[in-house]
Amino acid sequence: MLEHNSLQMFQYIKRDTRDFVNIDPLQTAGALTDAAKDALLEWGDGYSVCDYCGGSLDLVKKPPIYDFVHKSLPEFLGVDEARVMNGARESKFAVMQSLAMAAAEKGSKDNYVVMDSWAHYSSKVAAENAGLDIIFTKKPESEILPEDFAEAIEAGIKERGKKPLLAQITYPDGSYGNLADLKKIVQVSHEYEVPVLINGAYSVGRMPVNAKEVGADYIVGSGHKSMSACGPVGVLGVNGEEAAAQLFRKSKYNKVKEVALLGCTSRGAPIMTLMASFPEVVRRTQPENWEKEVTLAQSFIKRLEDSGKFKLFGQNPHKHDLMFFEAPGFFNISEKTKRGRYFLYDELKEKKIHGIKPGLTKNFKISTFGLGKEKLDYVAESFEEILKKYDEI
Amino acid sequence: MLEHNSLQMFQYIKRDTRDFVNIDPLQTAGALTDAAKDALLEWGDGYSVCDYCGGSLDLVKKPPIYDFVHKSLPEFLGVDEARVMNGARESKFAVMQSLAMAAAEKGSKDNYVVMDSWAHYSSKVAAENAGLDIIFTKKPESEILPEDFAEAIEAGIKERGKKPLLAQITYPDGSYGNLADLKKIVQVSHEYEVPVLINGAYSVGRMPVNAKEVGADYIVGSGHKSMSACGPVGVLGVNGEEAAAQLFRKSKYNKVKEVALLGCTSRGAPIMTLMASFPEVVRRTQPENWEKEVTLAQSFIKRLEDSGKFKLFGQNPHKHDLMFFEAPGFFNISEKTKRGRYFLYDELKEKKIHGIKPGLTKNFKISTFGLGKEKLDYVAESFEEILKKYDEI
Repeated sequence: MLEHNSLQMFQYIKRDTRDFVNIDPLQTAGALTDAAKDALLEWGDGYSVCDYCGGSLDLVKKPPIYDFVHKSLPEFLGVDEARVMNGARESKFAVMQSLAMAAAEKGSKDNYVVMDSWAHYSSKVAAENAGLDIIFTKKPESEILPEDFAEAIEAGIKERGKKPLLAQITYPDGSYGNLADLKKIVQVSHEYEVPVLINGAYSVGRMPVNAKEVGADYIVGSGHKSMSACGPVGVLGVNGEEAAAQLFRKSKYNKVKEVALLGCTSRGAPIMTLMASFPEVVRRTQPENWEKEVTLAQSFIKRLEDSGKFKLFGQNPHKHDLMFFEAPGFFNISEKTKRGRYFLYDELKEKKIHGIKPGLTKNFKISTFGLGKEKLDYVAESFEEILKKYDEI
Repeated sequence: MLEHNSLQMFQYIKRDTRDFVNIDPLQTAGALTDAAKDALLEWGDGYSVCDYCGGSLDLVKKPPIYDFVHKSLPEFLGVDEARVMNGARESKFAVMQSLAMAAAEKGSKDNYVVMDSWAHYSSKVAAENAGLDIIFTKKPESEILPEDFAEAIEAGIKERGKKPLLAQITYPDGSYGNLADLKKIVQVSHEYEVPVLINGAYSVGRMPVNAKEVGADYIVGSGHKSMSACGPVGVLGVNGEEAAAQLFRKSKYNKVKEVALLGCTSRGAPIMTLMASFPEVVRRTQPENWEKEVTLAQSFIKRLEDSGKFKLFGQNPHKHDLMFFEAPGFFNISEKTKRGRYFLYDELKEKKIHGIKPGLTKNFKISTFGLGKEKLDYVAESFEEILKKYDEI
């Protein structure tokens, strides 16, 4: 029954991790800036932005969504045209669905895309929902290589008699934080006349990445993951007049509504928080500031590795804040404590550290983004203290 | 250039309509409750809810998303299964894309849906993005009738040799606030074995509406439009095991991710605001409370019509807070003032009333939802004062 008393459980719920040190890669670059918090409250009501809309969200002049979408964002992403979307996954789907439909209109069926084997599940689901098969690059030893893309494209052509509609590279991948050579992957794919999409969910907003500089056709980013915005919100950019016209084609039923966007996307506080955090996002993605983040990440990795109880997977020296460790010490403890593999989560909770999934001990990923030296030292010390407590060091 | 000084234009932007009396149908039932404002700040950071997620948003137990999605929401909508989506349009698209893909898998191409001729543009764009054609019911004189659906379905079968994948009814339509006879429309459509979707963007959260009671297969609602939630967020419900299994089918790449949802939807503050406002939404949609809204709407209409300067389009006596007027008095003024057709927007702005689009005078839609007698009297008085000022009454 929809009894008022029982429905109160949905209200005034505290987020107990809110004042924790959060090392979840999903969260470190999503925390709101002060300006975004202000935007959230000011624009929180329902469809607030629509008070100012003449029919196309991206053309709203006041608040300056037009300037953001048509000037700042394209320059930031290195694209000819950009839009604000409901997320990175929705952006990938929009590109794939558009390409699939354009192909279908030309009578081409059973199409596919090529994707790096470290692609996020949301990329796979996006292809699946667009009715596209996927050919993955081979499982890499340590890095996705340009020749892996050539191989996958060749395999697709051989198997299906036609090239893929798209090649997608995850930059960086969401498990190891490895950065592939975008420019060469684009070059290789373009040799087959295959357009390239960069999934920048963990790069756009964290580090410098520019689609034009590497020659990419599409780039997507995540507002909630990496641009200090309230989700769901993401960004989508495209290069080339023809590709943009196809992706942002207007409805035959309504001349101002873009089909792939279902007419409108982020129509409330999320876009306003994305804009409000943008100056800070631009600042932190300047090469010199990103360099500082990488240095902090490398120091943190070194400290952990020096203990002899942690091994970094992936590129080393590491070039990103997202990192994946093997931690045999934690695993050993899980084998001997009463709480088993949940001990680590509990121990970290006691120290107000959040971000390693409950139950993980042997392998886990974390992110150091934006934490700064003091908090990173605290995390490293906490790891060491836990190992000491259980006599692992 | 991405200069810090110029980027500051994206920050600390005031929403000048925030303390206005807002009569825009998009806005009246989207304003946040106090509980939702609390949720917004508590859960504003990026992907906040994901701190608690084991892989499926709808299964998160704490905060009680599971209870909301799998218990309260299905009961509220009158469905077997429900999900929280990015909006009503995204929900309609999910249904249509799923049906289109299931048909395609069976080798059926060139499919179509039937829709009432007052369907919102987002319904049309959803069909278009799913590669589906649309056959509309005939333009009604005053109401969409069950036989209009029969006629459209018959026309489709005659033209294409097969029934439509879906019949969609907008309840109420977004222009006139007319309420069609859902039960009969469902009956008629089911006689052809065509499933029915209710687009309840202006009903779910405002008034009683229950898919099971009228026998509907799908229902969608809008969190930001009618459920006092921060957008983008919406709800999707489905009846029938087979339909639910098809709509919420899992990815072949990841056994917990639902394809039509791209794996995950509203993954931050919007879902928490939706939940926080839900007790109030349940309260206000109780028949006796909705009846009060309708009475207020009817009194407002009567007062305007009594002035002789306003004519209501659509059902009269009116049964919804969304209403469409012809206002010859305002039109006359627009013909003679310097500001032309923008005079009304300016005059209302001075009186801190927002919601009639700039430039409209002769015909416009507004909503009385949740304003209460005092504010509605103020709006009616303001209309009368403006007419008097320009010697129209």
